[in-house]
Amino acid sequence: MTPHVHESRIRVRYGDTDQMGFAHHAEYLLWFESARTDLLRELGFRYKDLEKRGILLTVIESHCRHWAPAHYDELIRVRAWSEEIRRLKVRIAYEIVDDASGKRLATGHSVLGSIDREGRPNPLPEDVIAVLSKGLRKPS
Amino acid sequence: MTPHVHESRIRVRYGDTDQMGFAHHAEYLLWFESARTDLLRELGFRYKDLEKRGILLTVIESHCRHWAPAHYDELIRVRAWSEEIRRLKVRIAYEIVDDASGKRLATGHSVLGSIDREGRPNPLPEDVIAVLSKGLRKPS
Amino acid sequence: MTPHVHESRIRVRYGDTDQMGFAHHAEYLLWFESARTDLLRELGFRYKDLEKRGILLTVIESHCRHWAPAHYDELIRVRAWSEEIRRLKVRIAYEIVDDASGKRLATGHSVLGSIDREGRPNPLPEDVIAVLSKGLRKPS
Amino acid sequence: MTPHVHESRIRVRYGDTDQMGFAHHAEYLLWFESARTDLLRELGFRYKDLEKRGILLTVIESHCRHWAPAHYDELIRVRAWSEEIRRLKVRIAYEIVDDASGKRLATGHSVLGSIDREGRPNPLPEDVIAVLSKGLRKPS
Repeated sequence: MTPHVHESRIRVRYGDTDQMGFAHHAEYLLWFESARTDLLRELGFRYKDLEKRGILLTVIESHCRHWAPAHYDELIRVRAWSEEIRRLKVRIAYEIVDDASGKRLATGHSVLGSIDREGRPNPLPEDVIAVLSKGLRKPS
Repeated sequence: MTPHVHESRIRVRYGDTDQMGFAHHAEYLLWFESARTDLLRELGFRYKDLEKRGILLTVIESHCRHWAPAHYDELIRVRAWSEEIRRLKVRIAYEIVDDASGKRLATGHSVLGSIDREGRPNPLPEDVIAVLSKGLRKPS
Repeated sequence: MTPHVHESRIRVRYGDTDQMGFAHHAEYLLWFESARTDLLRELGFRYKDLEKRGILLTVIESHCRHWAPAHYDELIRVRAWSEEIRRLKVRIAYEIVDDASGKRLATGHSVLGSIDREGRPNPLPEDVIAVLSKGLRKPS
Repeated sequence: MTPHVHESRIRVRYGDTDQMGFAHHAEYLLWFESARTDLLRELGFRYKDLEKRGILLTVIESHCRHWAPAHYDELIRVRAWSEEIRRLKVRIAYEIVDDASGKRLATGHSVLGSIDREGRPNPLPEDVIAVLSKGLRKPS
């Protein structure tokens, strides 16, 4: 693991499971989102401050591949890193592993578009691009 | 059932269940919310138009009593009616029954406070009170 | 639209939105799931009956591309069709459009793996493959 | 704060908010649930081990009173303690405060019924009652 990969630890909640006994697949997108918020904070800014400046990052694509199920009460680690930074979109990648065993549970990515409050494309300012680029790692 | 009680039909989704095999209890508050939106529409206005006028109804209390579990793929009926209308708060009550058997699954209520965009108390206008009062039924 | 495409109508709930004012992207996977359940029912079997036979379809991949946001109280139509049927996995595709305007809001797909209660690969029985294949449409 | 009150720290996620800009009220029940799981762990057993013994605690009542909104990215503390322990039901109370200011955001409680896998009443074993009673605090 290289230093520009952020890692969040999350515990699977009872309500995250479904009757199959696994964490429901939609929950993974919320875990990705948490890790993304934490990654940005670690890189030096808070997403909520970005919104105050009128810059909104909206999810325009999300993908998740499940390798093994996560279960209630398990601790997981969600890794997030930026794969691509452009003026109008950012691509963040994720990997989820079981905290105890290190076993890979899921991988995925999301593409976020930069928009203004009216939903129009809104180029990211230089300072944000510079900060995000610190965490950049090319897709393997 | 008296005419001022609105009824919404909802199908339990897979993701609404938890590993116990029942619909998760937090989901009921979203079902109440759907029925509340539908009740207001039936009474003659859309909640989203209220928000456009700067009137926000925020949940300040919610209660749910579960009598029997709801399961995946079952159709349920969510009944909603207003129990109390004041200038600064509104109390809506709910009953959920299984669509096929009519069996009572849950009862509950929520109290909504009328606020403005800054979160301050914001008395409901007369026209809204008049419309909401059409659906009024005292708690038994 | 060809007849083997199922369509579910869903109303966006208040709780489905986030502070950006759009339906949250994770919610789309639950909409896909609802449409998938409805598609199977339309094709002639209920997913819950499949589970009773010990055949579980677990999501092993999900993807969603957002073209335009969905908002609170809007009616949407979620189209679902099977794209690929194999003994151990099934691929279902989706398209979400705004009910009023017909505008495309999202497209996506999910891959489901057939497993048994212990999580082991579990080939789909012939009758299920036959039924699912009725709705088959190749990816364009 | 007395020692038998457990406290969990949780960060509000983006997806937990709604278009009012507050954390959605249904999310509080999931926060209560997380704190409940953590309380049991702290008292000496894991709820998932209880389920393995065939003892399920299902929510039969939940209540939440909101005093002030929680916002995206805020850290909150969720306090949980047992208020009443009987053979067939347990009552847990909660208080949520803002981590930074200590401001009270919500209070609530839930009543859990002890059932078996078939949903029948299932008296709690003595060892579980003994453990839960360690954290007992009468409602004020």
